[in-house]
Amino acid sequence: MPRIEIDLPLSLKTALEQEAARSGKDLGAHIRAILADHLKAEVHTVFQISTSGALVAGVYDREVSVGALLEHGDFGLGTFAGLDGEMVVLDGKAFQARAGGEVHEAPADAGSPFAVVTRFSADQVGETEGVSSFDGLGAACDCFRSSNNIFHAVRLDGRFKRVKARAVCPPKPGTLLADAAKTQSEFTFEDVDGTLVGIWSPAYSAEFSVEGYHFHFLSDDRSQGGHVLEVEAGPLKIAVENLTDFHLILPETEHFLKANLDQDVAATLSSVERSHS
Amino acid sequence: MPRIEIDLPLSLKTALEQEAARSGKDLGAHIRAILADHLKAEVHTVFQISTSGALVAGVYDREVSVGALLEHGDFGLGTFAGLDGEMVVLDGKAFQARAGGEVHEAPADAGSPFAVVTRFSADQVGETEGVSSFDGLGAACDCFRSSNNIFHAVRLDGRFKRVKARAVCPPKPGTLLADAAKTQSEFTFEDVDGTLVGIWSPAYSAEFSVEGYHFHFLSDDRSQGGHVLEVEAGPLKIAVENLTDFHLILPETEHFLKANLDQDVAATLSSVERSHS
Repeated sequence: MPRIEIDLPLSLKTALEQEAARSGKDLGAHIRAILADHLKAEVHTVFQISTSGALVAGVYDREVSVGALLEHGDFGLGTFAGLDGEMVVLDGKAFQARAGGEVHEAPADAGSPFAVVTRFSADQVGETEGVSSFDGLGAACDCFRSSNNIFHAVRLDGRFKRVKARAVCPPKPGTLLADAAKTQSEFTFEDVDGTLVGIWSPAYSAEFSVEGYHFHFLSDDRSQGGHVLEVEAGPLKIAVENLTDFHLILPETEHFLKANLDQDVAATLSSVERSHS
Repeated sequence: MPRIEIDLPLSLKTALEQEAARSGKDLGAHIRAILADHLKAEVHTVFQISTSGALVAGVYDREVSVGALLEHGDFGLGTFAGLDGEMVVLDGKAFQARAGGEVHEAPADAGSPFAVVTRFSADQVGETEGVSSFDGLGAACDCFRSSNNIFHAVRLDGRFKRVKARAVCPPKPGTLLADAAKTQSEFTFEDVDGTLVGIWSPAYSAEFSVEGYHFHFLSDDRSQGGHVLEVEAGPLKIAVENLTDFHLILPETEHFLKANLDQDVAATLSSVERSHS
């Protein structure tokens, strides 16, 4: 086994020695176990920041920086502080789609109140049939999911005939999501190469996540994107990852801790996420 | 900074070097960051194995060993493979309460299908008023919770006038929880020193966790325990931990993946968890 030397702050070394003593291991074995766990945790783990219920209740504050988020995953979706557009995380970069569907790469210090990311590694790959609607897209993806009881990351690549999308616009502070959605910007992309970045969440997560499929779009040239409302496409390359480790990181802000989350999150989201103006 | 030498398997070293390169750190800095994250993750994190909905649907298989569970926490509750009694995790040990309320320490290789544990560190401590019912206990604990939107671990120590408790008995394989609960064993402890080990879960977790307070009891002499149905006690010492990191580890077994979880978990649990025969 290769031997390496590392410098450890005394406080860290002491705390690790105490842990190792509790579990009856020596320090080296304990550190090896932590490092191995860390690598294992990188696979099939989804990190969610905050809850969809908090968004519905108007908690849009900066909770995490884009830079910190990207340490937990290279694929996923979310929104920005103040509901300033849609976030698409793809191939390790975070993009911001604003009103009109214009996209730019988000800086590392941009803030997010809600996001779901994973380090994408496919368990199933294949090709879908052509699809002519959002529901048809879901049905095509269903063939590649192994269970209704775990989370999944879904990536679709190819040419899109039509993508109808939206981007939220920053509402006045305190506006509830249902009201903010009324001022969202909707737009349609046609005949464009791109990627659908999706997370599928099980029914039991309906009150804190987004039940079923949730897709954001990003064009190959990184100039167009948004939250997907409708889609028409020929056959698409599909890759699906099974997510059996769900890590929910809750905000510790006064705004989140005091928010009234006793609302029918699933019904509101279903209306907001799928609605067309 | 103290320097330490550790032996790392080549595969682990290579994978860590690749990660370090991706984030632009050197190997030592990367390992320091992982170890620091690990220690931080030990605080305010709750690990839940499987979902309450899976239990309701009859998924009681061994998912994790008691030994592995204790690596994630020293405080919490759960049940055993085959629904063989109630689990109480206290001060780093796991105890098994079976029919009649008799308790023994569970061996490290005992299996669990569902458990919730944390490494307990109190954020609030104090003393409750005397309580004369389960609901009264909840009201007394509410004064020490800072939010309805995060999870909490709750520990109460003192003398109990009366604890009415139950332990599930192993049902035939495939029995649903609601039916299994009909054959549970109920018993009452009187005038006993002990500890209530509790987890409080927010409303949005009702479909995968146990909404509100969920308490298991363990006597100081480790001879009596079970799932708490009713309680009468004088003032109790209380310690409450805020849990803002929720880590849900989903089973990868065929039984879990194929289970029908489309049931009203919250209603069934409310009936099963609180019911008296």
